[in-house]
Amino acid sequence: MPNWLLPENIADVLPSEARKIEDLRRQMLDTFRLYGYELVMPPLLEYVESLLAGAGQDTDLRTFKLVDQLSGRLLGLRADMTTQVARIDAHLLNRDSITRLCYAGSVLHTRPSGLHATREPLQIGAEIYGHAGLEADAEIQELALASVALAGFIEVRLDLAHVGVLRALLEQCEAARRDEVQLYALLRAKDTPGIDELTRGYDAVTRAALLALPNLYGDVEVLGRAREVLPALPGITRALSELAALAAGAIGRADVAIDLADLRGYQYESGAMFALYVPGLPNAVARGGRYDHVGEAFGRARPATGFSLDLRELARLLPTAERKHSIRAPWGNAPELREKIAELRKAGEVVIQSMPGHDNVQDEFECDRVLVLEDANWILKNLG
Amino acid sequence: MPNWLLPENIADVLPSEARKIEDLRRQMLDTFRLYGYELVMPPLLEYVESLLAGAGQDTDLRTFKLVDQLSGRLLGLRADMTTQVARIDAHLLNRDSITRLCYAGSVLHTRPSGLHATREPLQIGAEIYGHAGLEADAEIQELALASVALAGFIEVRLDLAHVGVLRALLEQCEAARRDEVQLYALLRAKDTPGIDELTRGYDAVTRAALLALPNLYGDVEVLGRAREVLPALPGITRALSELAALAAGAIGRADVAIDLADLRGYQYESGAMFALYVPGLPNAVARGGRYDHVGEAFGRARPATGFSLDLRELARLLPTAERKHSIRAPWGNAPELREKIAELRKAGEVVIQSMPGHDNVQDEFECDRVLVLEDANWILKNLG
Repeated sequence: MPNWLLPENIADVLPSEARKIEDLRRQMLDTFRLYGYELVMPPLLEYVESLLAGAGQDTDLRTFKLVDQLSGRLLGLRADMTTQVARIDAHLLNRDSITRLCYAGSVLHTRPSGLHATREPLQIGAEIYGHAGLEADAEIQELALASVALAGFIEVRLDLAHVGVLRALLEQCEAARRDEVQLYALLRAKDTPGIDELTRGYDAVTRAALLALPNLYGDVEVLGRAREVLPALPGITRALSELAALAAGAIGRADVAIDLADLRGYQYESGAMFALYVPGLPNAVARGGRYDHVGEAFGRARPATGFSLDLRELARLLPTAERKHSIRAPWGNAPELREKIAELRKAGEVVIQSMPGHDNVQDEFECDRVLVLEDANWILKNLG
Repeated sequence: MPNWLLPENIADVLPSEARKIEDLRRQMLDTFRLYGYELVMPPLLEYVESLLAGAGQDTDLRTFKLVDQLSGRLLGLRADMTTQVARIDAHLLNRDSITRLCYAGSVLHTRPSGLHATREPLQIGAEIYGHAGLEADAEIQELALASVALAGFIEVRLDLAHVGVLRALLEQCEAARRDEVQLYALLRAKDTPGIDELTRGYDAVTRAALLALPNLYGDVEVLGRAREVLPALPGITRALSELAALAAGAIGRADVAIDLADLRGYQYESGAMFALYVPGLPNAVARGGRYDHVGEAFGRARPATGFSLDLRELARLLPTAERKHSIRAPWGNAPELREKIAELRKAGEVVIQSMPGHDNVQDEFECDRVLVLEDANWILKNLG
């Protein structure tokens, strides 16, 4: 087997693609900063207990594990950075006030999430800790929309969901609580006949509500229908009004779709959840939501909401960056030449010095000018 | 054991430190780009055969290994990116012309290189492929000096060495070739009595040269002394003149020290080697040199020279960045407020919206102004 072969679903990023990723990475981190988000860099490796604290079995199975020579203990390669950033908020920063953090880094997966998915996504995201109110959810949603807009996407769909509806229904019905796992699966599959069968012994209000959920999807009008068909429990009323406010916040930035049976993050999330979709990609490009329990495992449960996306996937959807115009210069140690080149580079020009005996052929840079000596002066000339 | 504990020699990077690293990372990558270096992003994981192709036993022992669930084969976490970038040049890009590549990413080590060294350095570097002449070495040396200067270091020491001297001596003396490993160790230890004993059976010229090497260190004058005491073999003459040219190229940028017995990279390097030192750190902050054989394992040996440094270590030496002045704004959905905030952010101001019921305390940002509503206009007021 040739030794330049890479493992399945693992790839190099070559110059034109790397440039797109790097540009987007900077623009997003700069945007997060303008909102007051501070950058943190958690490690690639941690003890598995820390990495998987509070995370689900999904993450466990996706996490590469290896033994630490120094301690003999099991280490994991991070498959997701959310828990790490929560650990930093809970334990290291330990502030009482609101903390806004952002991050960007590679994560690794033992198995790809789809046939063509990479096992090394480049996760970038932002999180707010310490505020339980909807203002935090709204700011995170705004940042996620701004991030996708930075990548140049104009047609964006925002899917909104809320775990509060199902939670409130379970709270008032013991039988439903016992069937939680099954109900969760049936609702995700929008399996109405299955729900019909399972809920036969439930009280009529809960049963009717659960049967209604799979049909409560569509544009914001869904919220009006939901108010009619779902019981006016405090948890449900609150969830519906939060969704209405978040939908209003996205007007003019995205088409909003609401799905009250979408429970993808049900196990970890604790409030509103969202996903962003763009043309050309069937999966969500960004996901976010509230998960107030995330810091618990580190001794400090704080309200938390955030979002993240895979920069590599997003960048792949973008057109190839145009080749950057640059200047070809001869090799030489003459102080005037060196000064002229330094001056051009200081002005932001890419100056590529030719090495004797070689042409310069590059993917990324197109030499459209050349530095030549005329009458003892170094001047720029256009290349045909 | 508390689950917020991290493995030894593994650490989170908190906001003030992360900011310094991110700023330096961008400045260095931008500088590389101005010289025509194209960014590539090799993967964190590869088959060990690829990762260790052409690398030494040192790298093998420092490389974390794990089994790939998809292939059942052994994977390694990169401990160094040089081989990966050489693979990209040799196999993926496969250009005949000169290729300039740069990279920045985390590498992982099973064991730290020193008591307080991190096991997750952030390696950044640049490489030129395809040119055997000294121009490539000079450009790489210039880039390394420029990178360290970007970090604000003024007092820099450049150590120069060259594997060509020892190679030429071994070529003319069969006995010395047989003792290569031993000679290498004795020279690195500057063990003159040991060399004296080992070289008794050698021809007088080689013996005298090997005995002279441990004393051939100091400023550029060393080159003059070397020309007197070493035989005028083509390899030696060439090495000495290359060192003279490289030393001249660093005038005004670094204090140059030459050590002809410094053979740290002898096994992999094939020409001039350098190391940069700054006050406050006993180890080199950057290392570089020529290693023309690096692409061989991937079927394409091309002339190659490059350098790299650990951004985390370099950033640690820098003073903490000043807190960035920012603006506090109230929460609210009023279009005028939202517009005003968007406008300020567009102008590069960090605007932190207060969430009801909380103060904002942050490491990185200091709110020195506040956005207030006066006579129906949002205006900035200074904070005491």
